[in-house]
Amino acid sequence: MSDLVCLGIDPGLARLGYGAVAQSGFRLRALNYGCIETTPDMSFTERLLKIYADLQEQINACKPDIVSVEKLFFGRNTTTAEYVWQARGVIMLLTAQNNLPVIEPKPNQIKMALCGTGDADKLQVQRMVQRFLALDEIPQPDDTADALAAAVTGLALGFRA
Amino acid sequence: MSDLVCLGIDPGLARLGYGAVAQSGFRLRALNYGCIETTPDMSFTERLLKIYADLQEQINACKPDIVSVEKLFFGRNTTTAEYVWQARGVIMLLTAQNNLPVIEPKPNQIKMALCGTGDADKLQVQRMVQRFLALDEIPQPDDTADALAAAVTGLALGFRA
Repeated sequence: MSDLVCLGIDPGLARLGYGAVAQSGFRLRALNYGCIETTPDMSFTERLLKIYADLQEQINACKPDIVSVEKLFFGRNTTTAEYVWQARGVIMLLTAQNNLPVIEPKPNQIKMALCGTGDADKLQVQRMVQRFLALDEIPQPDDTADALAAAVTGLALGFRA
Repeated sequence: MSDLVCLGIDPGLARLGYGAVAQSGFRLRALNYGCIETTPDMSFTERLLKIYADLQEQINACKPDIVSVEKLFFGRNTTTAEYVWQARGVIMLLTAQNNLPVIEPKPNQIKMALCGTGDADKLQVQRMVQRFLALDEIPQPDDTADALAAAVTGLALGFRA
């Protein structure tokens, strides 16, 4: 049986984390992972364009079977929220253009999948990412680690729907 | 001098209004206008895909010089807001992919541009859309009229930046 590949994404405008994880039986392995960054000296639409192009590149690199896009929560209706939601729209469009099924785990589902409790803190989740994927270090920045956590969650939950 | 064309857009997921307006000197003329509709029986990503394809078609039809995308306001951080923001992200991406400058007028700027006051009500704005564009009737649904209003505003404000 060939590997199943899940591309995890932590949506954002300034920093968008991505991380592809391959599953063979019980074994998990990190493929390409990192962070797409855009800066305020770019116009908003240029930033969306960069996210669109760079993320397509990562999809081409890992050829995922499924994409896991973390669900966002914002305490207040801030301006940041507006821009991050719009960036997320571009991500969701890309999944459709590539004919990829999407799972949208909530933060507490990711914590549950990796740590066994929805109350786990950030560092706990990052340690489990490192352990599951047998990485030498916790991936940096946080956005990258969060994306890999979303990918592991996608493999745990995505094919049971 | 050739016409200036502004494509106005009233962002939405279920109904996205669009309306292209051409300006020759002081004369305004409506080109293609209407409403892109998506239904809840489609998945969210399929809806984004339809918006992306249909809006590109309208861009091809009117070849705008500028796009005017109404700025959204939501009183509360509702679920609707999340989805409409994501749809707006797809719209903004399209403007960048087509190399088009964007103006993002707020509702009160649109009211001011068409009616001379930021307090104008919906029907007043629609009547002025009808008058400016010499249309036999107020365009339906509201989303279409709002998009045409955004286009007229874009022509009024867009090239003065």
